Amino acid sequence: MLRHCLATALALALALPALAQAAGDATPAHTPTPKELLAKSQPQEWRTPAPDNLIVMQLPQGQVLIELAPDFTPLHAANIRTLVREHYFDGLAVVRVQDNFVTQWGDPEDDDDGNKSKLRPLGTAKAKLPPEYTRPLDPTLPFTALPDGDVYASEVGFSEGFPVGRDATLGQEWLTHCYGMVGVGRDNEPDTGNGSALYVVIGQAPRGLDRNLAVVGRVLKGMEYLSGLPRGTGPLGFYEKPEQRLPIRTVQLASALPPVQRPTIEVLRTDSATFAALIEAKRNRRDDFYRNPAGKIDLCSVNIPVREAAAKP
Amino acid sequence: MLRHCLATALALALALPALAQAAGDATPAHTPTPKELLAKSQPQEWRTPAPDNLIVMQLPQGQVLIELAPDFTPLHAANIRTLVREHYFDGLAVVRVQDNFVTQWGDPEDDDDGNKSKLRPLGTAKAKLPPEYTRPLDPTLPFTALPDGDVYASEVGFSEGFPVGRDATLGQEWLTHCYGMVGVGRDNEPDTGNGSALYVVIGQAPRGLDRNLAVVGRVLKGMEYLSGLPRGTGPLGFYEKPEQRLPIRTVQLASALPPVQRPTIEVLRTDSATFAALIEAKRNRRDDFYRNPAGKIDLCSVNIPVREAAAKP
Repeated sequence: MLRHCLATALALALALPALAQAAGDATPAHTPTPKELLAKSQPQEWRTPAPDNLIVMQLPQGQVLIELAPDFTPLHAANIRTLVREHYFDGLAVVRVQDNFVTQWGDPEDDDDGNKSKLRPLGTAKAKLPPEYTRPLDPTLPFTALPDGDVYASEVGFSEGFPVGRDATLGQEWLTHCYGMVGVGRDNEPDTGNGSALYVVIGQAPRGLDRNLAVVGRVLKGMEYLSGLPRGTGPLGFYEKPEQRLPIRTVQLASALPPVQRPTIEVLRTDSATFAALIEAKRNRRDDFYRNPAGKIDLCSVNIPVREAAAKP
Repeated sequence: MLRHCLATALALALALPALAQAAGDATPAHTPTPKELLAKSQPQEWRTPAPDNLIVMQLPQGQVLIELAPDFTPLHAANIRTLVREHYFDGLAVVRVQDNFVTQWGDPEDDDDGNKSKLRPLGTAKAKLPPEYTRPLDPTLPFTALPDGDVYASEVGFSEGFPVGRDATLGQEWLTHCYGMVGVGRDNEPDTGNGSALYVVIGQAPRGLDRNLAVVGRVLKGMEYLSGLPRGTGPLGFYEKPEQRLPIRTVQLASALPPVQRPTIEVLRTDSATFAALIEAKRNRRDDFYRNPAGKIDLCSVNIPVREAAAKP
């Protein structure tokens, strides 16, 4: 038998009777597994990301898909769209991989030698943007709250497919730095981010960054191409030699692709019944492996399922 | 200027005046940075791991050091020492890298084809061990509590260099699945772990595994060699082709090495004043980059510093 140390992969969860079933019950009650929950999800529980919010990044190993979150960081989303449309990222590179922290990409010349003349021009994109670290709390946004609390925020949950922190006292909400979330690098001054340097979280969620950086979206597919890279050996995990950098072939918006070439990815709606059931199933695992179900889950341990859309008939 | 998106690396934190300083103060109050805190730490605040608890794993890219935690999982530590002393791991391999979860190593033949005859013999090590998922709470163990709560445990902090969850009602404590923590793979039955298959956490802390698996220690050095690997494409992240596996050259106990060849690593004591000051500095960052210090920290976001010992005169 496979000596697996766990069985968390949603798609591989085994169908097993609930631990709570009565001993000797001939037809045991059955707690649905994540796989079963996904299998019986309804078509309307899935959404197709808007093509203007879907970034297609081609790396040598494969395709990375990133969904922008313009309801949280609209000015950054707009600027990134401009950069992408004007082919700013084509031929740039992954320049930094800091273990248990972030992978970052952008202009390799954007280092600290002070020579800005070598930088690739930003075209019609803005060089500076207002911070957008938080946004006013909008009660009309769908919000699926988690019940188990959070170390950093007074309330956490999901809006429109993204992990969110909220503070009713501050009247603010913000995207959180969970694994796979994409943020905008900046210098020390808060208005120096513009989206030309982006990072993705590849380790324990650095939630101390929340409300200090503009989080612009989430990697939906291809995360393994950004996380499974050799760590940089320079300060902050920057690659020290140009040949260590991973070249970016192209970055395009799905909306710029002919419809037949657009990714056919779907994301489970985070305000759906199936998503709520998946959270509950992960809070209280019921299978032969788990002996002490946690009964709890933290924000960044919740997976937001993604799938390839079924081929149209 | 370097377009860094953050400045969390302890060793690189900049020495900058506290945000709270009075405007115009000619001699501003200065909040020590992590780098400064470490620089003024006292020699007795550092400890050298016991050579019998220090595992030296040689991978093609470099050395991985793992410290065992026999006060928490004594039977597993003893069995792993037996396996290591009898060269069980030499020539085995990293067999699994599941993104945002674990890297696992052991016997490549330990798969689910049911043919146990091909397995490398365990020698004098035991094939089964009692679970050791938790241990009775020991009030005599040093414990540095964190003040900001935890989603999973009623109390969290650090004992003897390891992150720990505690539950006074249960009267139990346990090592937690933070990034870099090492656990023992097992089959479904709780007594089927023996230390011949080990995993290390490489993503968001899968705290739902706490109290369901035996956690045996922590990677002190070389974590990047285990985390920065291509992800496996088979179920649960197993590598599908033998040539994808990363060979393990040797695994030895430091105590089996001649004293001059032993690693000279030191770990900051987690019951030291400097460690407490580092936690506080990370809870409330005071530098030019952070605009909204979190005022909080979660268990698995605390770094436990490690350094090379100074050469003896």
